[in-house]
Amino acid sequence: MGDTVKVLIVSAENFEDTELLAPYYRFREEGFEVDIASVAKGKITGKHGYEVNANLSLEEVEPEHYGLLFLPGGKAPESLRKLQCALEIARRFFASGKPVAAICHGPQILITAGLLNGRRATCYKSVAPEMKVAGVIYQDSEVVVDGNLITSRQPSDIPVFMGEIMKMLRK
Amino acid sequence: MGDTVKVLIVSAENFEDTELLAPYYRFREEGFEVDIASVAKGKITGKHGYEVNANLSLEEVEPEHYGLLFLPGGKAPESLRKLQCALEIARRFFASGKPVAAICHGPQILITAGLLNGRRATCYKSVAPEMKVAGVIYQDSEVVVDGNLITSRQPSDIPVFMGEIMKMLRK
Repeated sequence: MGDTVKVLIVSAENFEDTELLAPYYRFREEGFEVDIASVAKGKITGKHGYEVNANLSLEEVEPEHYGLLFLPGGKAPESLRKLQCALEIARRFFASGKPVAAICHGPQILITAGLLNGRRATCYKSVAPEMKVAGVIYQDSEVVVDGNLITSRQPSDIPVFMGEIMKMLRK
Repeated sequence: MGDTVKVLIVSAENFEDTELLAPYYRFREEGFEVDIASVAKGKITGKHGYEVNANLSLEEVEPEHYGLLFLPGGKAPESLRKLQCALEIARRFFASGKPVAAICHGPQILITAGLLNGRRATCYKSVAPEMKVAGVIYQDSEVVVDGNLITSRQPSDIPVFMGEIMKMLRK
């Protein structure tokens, strides 16, 4: 996809700050455009107090404009999984075979969207039980790549997580 | 320097969390080894509550082992500039011509070490007056590269800051 990659970050209040910000800065370093979508346009605040501006509401998102869906963790995914529009965005990325990256609690959105049955993935340790119930082949590894899906467990996995994401986007 | 780059981060209590963590993760993604040195070995806590482990005390640092000195901001530089051992580390990087990158309040250490007179640099806006007094050709730009020295203003500059650091390390 080269230099035309556009990344969609979907998050909400109480995101895990470094899981959103470090990848955001990394994508921007690479020259990628990044949109941040949330329940409504405007400021969202991380668990550690960092504020970021969601420049789109979930309703405004057009998934076909993006090359990657990125789902940070924290408490945001627990609220997002209750919203049909968030689930629908994830389903459209999966349907088109485009890369989806989720870390920590991020995969909860994919579980509720019914997208992980039979897939190999990882997540934050407290999410592992529900992941297994959802039919996931769960692995306790820094990063798991299964087709278009890239998952990691926690902030300390960010280096390998981003490494795999960059590899997939350069394809 | 290829894949043998070793990075030294010098920081202390009340560092600016993303200015230490995002670059730390970025260096690790690239396969660089990273040491974090502080007043003493052990945990240091950022302004936003993130904890990182300083695996070296400043006294233990051997500057000749590293390919880059990285100075994050926050309140850490204000305490580090009072320590001769911190100033001495910076002076040895400059004497050897090795890359030094400082963001936000990070350049305060270099000012006190007497290293910036006549150099082009930037910093957090509240640090600009003392930078000018120290004889710096101050620029209000996202990043300023002057020889071995790379400086930026604030967290939102991290993408271009890291881009320039990576370019210099790949030389």
